[in-house]
Amino acid sequence: MREDYGYWTTIPTRWNDNDVYGHVNNVVHYAFMDTLINTWLIEAGLDIHGGTTIGLCVESHCNYRSSISFPDAMRAGLRIGHLGRSSVRYEIAFLAADDTVIAEGHFVHVFVDRTTRKPAEVPTGLRGAMAGLVYP
Amino acid sequence: MREDYGYWTTIPTRWNDNDVYGHVNNVVHYAFMDTLINTWLIEAGLDIHGGTTIGLCVESHCNYRSSISFPDAMRAGLRIGHLGRSSVRYEIAFLAADDTVIAEGHFVHVFVDRTTRKPAEVPTGLRGAMAGLVYP
Amino acid sequence: MREDYGYWTTIPTRWNDNDVYGHVNNVVHYAFMDTLINTWLIEAGLDIHGGTTIGLCVESHCNYRSSISFPDAMRAGLRIGHLGRSSVRYEIAFLAADDTVIAEGHFVHVFVDRTTRKPAEVPTGLRGAMAGLVYP
Amino acid sequence: MREDYGYWTTIPTRWNDNDVYGHVNNVVHYAFMDTLINTWLIEAGLDIHGGTTIGLCVESHCNYRSSISFPDAMRAGLRIGHLGRSSVRYEIAFLAADDTVIAEGHFVHVFVDRTTRKPAEVPTGLRGAMAGLVYP
Repeated sequence: MREDYGYWTTIPTRWNDNDVYGHVNNVVHYAFMDTLINTWLIEAGLDIHGGTTIGLCVESHCNYRSSISFPDAMRAGLRIGHLGRSSVRYEIAFLAADDTVIAEGHFVHVFVDRTTRKPAEVPTGLRGAMAGLVYP
Repeated sequence: MREDYGYWTTIPTRWNDNDVYGHVNNVVHYAFMDTLINTWLIEAGLDIHGGTTIGLCVESHCNYRSSISFPDAMRAGLRIGHLGRSSVRYEIAFLAADDTVIAEGHFVHVFVDRTTRKPAEVPTGLRGAMAGLVYP
Repeated sequence: MREDYGYWTTIPTRWNDNDVYGHVNNVVHYAFMDTLINTWLIEAGLDIHGGTTIGLCVESHCNYRSSISFPDAMRAGLRIGHLGRSSVRYEIAFLAADDTVIAEGHFVHVFVDRTTRKPAEVPTGLRGAMAGLVYP
Repeated sequence: MREDYGYWTTIPTRWNDNDVYGHVNNVVHYAFMDTLINTWLIEAGLDIHGGTTIGLCVESHCNYRSSISFPDAMRAGLRIGHLGRSSVRYEIAFLAADDTVIAEGHFVHVFVDRTTRKPAEVPTGLRGAMAGLVYP
């Protein structure tokens, strides 16, 4: 487990993650980012169903180095590259079981009020947890 | 773990499995069936990339009893209800972590030649493994 | 256009609807059912974001007769087989561009209160529209 | 129709493109890119099932400006920003029906031999079609 990412999880692939070229489709990596980030946010206290502040994606990016295929699992590492007042830039690494780098990406959340969708400060409790994930 | 299904696995949910109604969408259960069945088949020796015989779905069905939401995981149980010459009827149970039944369904594979797509006998090695999963 | 289904639409396929076997995956047909039914419901007045009554899927089924592949489009026909007090059984036909039957299925909605998730009568306006889709 | 993108298509949304926040999920935009690009490539002569050269994604990026929700359709524009020997950089614009910019992104294909997965020149016929899509 690489120490340059503070949070790691393993995401099993699904049958239809593979496309006609027989490997996990590029789009799926973004579904993994969403899942990884929101799993971490929920553990850190975000209430996706009723909380007043929610995170909306304003930018995402991925570089693909290699590939895996169902039924292989993806190991996913998360860290925070920049923690702003209302925005957070996450950095993500995807590794195969043998530590081969499959892909690297980033994803930017702007936190907004659930109803007005106007930018809002990252909630205090969440910010505390996020501070621990900032790298370097 | 219920003993009326011979093979069990746990499938984590993903962010976008939830729909606007806040729970895992009905379609996702079929993606779980595909994943559960093919995971078992691959472990039992099916070569999805190059094997001469592949399984095509000719029928599927699901009854929904309750629901879960991301980030909850789904427990999925598999058994075989009927093992024919070239077709197999799988039966699937989906449970929440507390054993609540979320859904129950079935799924029928017809095994076919990869190139001609004409029905073919279930390969011998696979049939042996399948026999152990037949219930009751 | 077959007259035994009262509402028809065409659903383009997407790159990743194809699986490793090179055709539209079985799961995708259920995504098409959800899309077809909810498109019709929204046109008929259902408010999926704020309405007090929503439809939840309690059963779905599909028989697969043939297949199509991206970039082919799917033609989808909808009718209502049974219109109950709080439940509706939809019947769906999927056709290729040349009228070949690709699949046939059904899908049962129970209408519930959005908050309590307890069964509720189909809203009057919606019921009127549904009556026109009942077959035969 | 903006003239700075040479190819336009309209992609209908699906029920489950919406996430719990009630709008089309960020991941879906990448599924649209894959669909848009491959639709164009197939029209230009790429054989995704049997051709000796295939395009693999090595990088993708998206900036999200606004959002749409099912059942709204997305208008998608495609152009080529850089046409190399074996790689192509596509640029994509997503617009709402009223021309509001929903998102803008790019996507880089490296063409490879289907079997060896080693870089290969863009096939001549495809290159001719691509030249017409280069901007500015």
